[in-house]
This record gives sequence, structure tokens and C-alpha cells, in this order.
Amino acid sequence: MKKILLVVAYDGSNYNGYQIQPGLPTIEGVLNKTLSDFLSEEIITVGASRTDTGVHAIHNVAVFNTATKIPAEKLFLAINTVLPKDIRIMCSREVSMDFHPRKNVIDKTYEYHILNSKVLLPTKRNYVYNTRAELDISAIKEAAKYFIGEKDFTSLCSAKTEKENKVRSIYSIDIIQSNDELTIRIRGNGFLYNMVRIIAGTLYNVGIGKIDACKIDEIIATKDRRLAGPTLPPQGLFLTEIRYKY
Amino acid sequence: MKKILLVVAYDGSNYNGYQIQPGLPTIEGVLNKTLSDFLSEEIITVGASRTDTGVHAIHNVAVFNTATKIPAEKLFLAINTVLPKDIRIMCSREVSMDFHPRKNVIDKTYEYHILNSKVLLPTKRNYVYNTRAELDISAIKEAAKYFIGEKDFTSLCSAKTEKENKVRSIYSIDIIQSNDELTIRIRGNGFLYNMVRIIAGTLYNVGIGKIDACKIDEIIATKDRRLAGPTLPPQGLFLTEIRYKY
Repeated sequence: MKKILLVVAYDGSNYNGYQIQPGLPTIEGVLNKTLSDFLSEEIITVGASRTDTGVHAIHNVAVFNTATKIPAEKLFLAINTVLPKDIRIMCSREVSMDFHPRKNVIDKTYEYHILNSKVLLPTKRNYVYNTRAELDISAIKEAAKYFIGEKDFTSLCSAKTEKENKVRSIYSIDIIQSNDELTIRIRGNGFLYNMVRIIAGTLYNVGIGKIDACKIDEIIATKDRRLAGPTLPPQGLFLTEIRYKY
Repeated sequence: MKKILLVVAYDGSNYNGYQIQPGLPTIEGVLNKTLSDFLSEEIITVGASRTDTGVHAIHNVAVFNTATKIPAEKLFLAINTVLPKDIRIMCSREVSMDFHPRKNVIDKTYEYHILNSKVLLPTKRNYVYNTRAELDISAIKEAAKYFIGEKDFTSLCSAKTEKENKVRSIYSIDIIQSNDELTIRIRGNGFLYNMVRIIAGTLYNVGIGKIDACKIDEIIATKDRRLAGPTLPPQGLFLTEIRYKY
């Protein structure tokens, strides 16, 4: 028996999120079934991030135990031949039996993409949040700084968040402008339910002048979700990296 | 009666190209039917570029005659409410009755997108040509210069090209590198069948060392299609601009 780590990329457009749900198409469901069929043993993967319906990943992680004799580093090529095209394994390798894809995390990185177009471009429709509003980028950059550090992010997560402890550390937020597209790249030790989409929505409200950049500290301190910006839609969100200690 | 110009954007993934074909989904077919139903008159559009199956557009152009009283500048908003999401009208305006979307062209711009990834990212699968090969970008930039100017492009179009005169002018080729994506942007007064995809394939072959940059002149001069590179697949190709004299 050995433990294999998969780096999993997917287009979330046609799935009800990562986490397995009976009768619905999910990334985890497809992975478990495809791996079980392919390796002729029951495979139950453990995922790193349970991304929502419509959210994409360039780099999510799943691990599983297997008796297969296929070399771990070659396994991803074989699995890709039987997976649907909107899910790809980017690489595979063996990890120690006590490795856990959520407990061993150093940090995760997400990107949120905002397009500035009068009409949403068809080729971007599943991969951005589109706005006709002109955004004040320097105000967004200023506001982003206030999220950095170890803070209680109660104001910036969904009321449905089940986790008791809402303290998380954000290490960096990069605001990257390229033509008519804005990328908000957030790296932190962990994220609460909808937290990236609400931070993006809060920065968006700063960009359109609805929230003042210098109010972010206060929004965080009050722990009142209603003061923050909206939860931006899922299709603009990409999970782009997870780093581990081994 | 007036003539309306539409700037049309589409995701070509689910269509058998632009040009209408009985029984098959095409951009032109959807436009004609949607406009006819919406305006309650028979609308036959005339398109500027008959892009192939799987090719995308940010900016194609179609014109049509209509008796509608809806102001030309507002029409695009109304039409977008009834079009499928993978086709959008970016703007609309009235043009003179003698305007022709192919005859009045000053220049057209296409982009070809090449991704350099070990495994094709699911979210890019319909929008790039993916390669695992490392490309020599400076050689590609060098080779691109040889295509500029008024030349006979017989070597660089499909044998199926029906046009007799194969002389076209290329005004510029920009080679743009951004992270792991390469964009080849070509502007010219017109393009023969598959010409952009074959120029992209020839530049690709230069990038992997299969064609020497200084051989491009010779490839053009011999008028032998077999000496040029492959026709890269359609999904990497975007029609991005058409400029007109009015």
C-alpha cells in the first residue's frame, strides 16, 4: 500500500463543486469513480480544497491509498487518458502514509478575475466576473494592504461558515492589471467559506467608490458581514496553488 | 429601410464555423434566425469573416437591412437578450446602404494563442494550442519579420483555397509572451483559407528548431505549401479586429 498525491486541475463550469454529492456531477465523484475503475480497487480520495460550484482549479490536491504497481510519477498520464477533458491530473507522486492534504498545508493561493467590458465576451463567460464599471485600481491596491496579516475574518466569510475559529493569516494580495482584466491574487494559510469571493467583492466595492479603502480595518474589526462587499460569482475564482510541508 | 452593422463576438467551440450550413449550428445561422424572429421580418446578414469550426471572435462584423424602428445604437442590447450566451453583439450602429463588410475592409487582426504546459489546463482547453515543447521566442520574433509586406502567400494557405489571387499584405506580426502563453498577433489587409493557422504553425516550427528563421523568404518564394509548417488547430485562433473605410 502506498499514498499518491495528485495535482488536480479542472474547469468547474459543469460540476456541482469539488465535494462528492450523491446523484450530482462533482470533481471528487468523478475522481473516485475513474480511479476505482482504472485501478480495479475501491479508491476514496481525500481532497485539499472543496471548491464551490463553478469555481475552477489550476492546482487542487487529492491523495489516495492504492496497491497499484504503476510508478507514482507516471500515474497521471495514465489517468488522464480516462478522465473527462475538463478534469486533468497535472502531476502525481508518492507521499508518506501520514501526509494529509489539509493538515500539512503551508499556504494556498487563489485568483479572482474581473473583466471590464461593456458586454461580456463569450470566450470569457465562464472565467471572469464582468463589470461595465470603471475601477479605481490605486484605491483597490491601497485597500488590499489592510487585509494582510493574522486577523479574525468573520466579516469576510459566509454566515454559513461552520468553522468556529475564524482567525486566518493572509500573506499577500497582488493586484494585477492586464489590458481590460484585473486579477486579485490572494495567498494565505487558509480561507473560510466564500472568503476569497467576499474579499474580492469588498475590493470591487472599493474600486467603484462604494467603500473607502481606509474603512477596511473597521469592517474587519466589527465582525459584521453586512459591512463588507458582495460575494462575487464563482466563475471568476481559480485555486492556483497549494504548498505543503512534508 | 436602413443598414445596421453589428460587431459580433462568439465562442466557436459549439459551432460548425461562421458560415450558414443547413442542419448544422453556425454563427450566421443563429444570427439570421434570432434577428428574423426578434424583428419579425426576414433578416439575411452578410458577414465579414467566415471563421472555421472552433475558431473564436472578439470582433467579427455582420450587416443587414431592416425596417425596424429600434434605434441602431440600442439594438445590440435588445438582441443580446435573445441570443445564446456564446454569441454576443458587442455594439451596433447604422451604416450607409452601400457599405459592404468585406469590400470596405482596411485591415483585419487575428491572434493565435499557444500555451506551454506539460498537461493542457482544462480551463484553457478550448482557447489555446498546447505544447510541451520549449519555444525559442527570439527565433520566432526573427522569423515573423519575413512575413511582413505584400507577398504571394500560396505556400501559406490551404490547398483548398478557392481564390485565384493569393497576394496579400501583412502589416504587422507581434509576438507577445505572458507567463506560459505565447500570442501571435497578425494584422493584414486580408487572409487566405487557413493562412493565419499555417503562419502560426510555421512560426511554431521555427520555435522548436524545425525551420530556420532565415528560410521563411525561400518558403514564401517557392509557393510550395509542403515547406511551411502545419495548420495549427482552430481553437487557438481569435479574430480580434476589423477596421473599415466608410
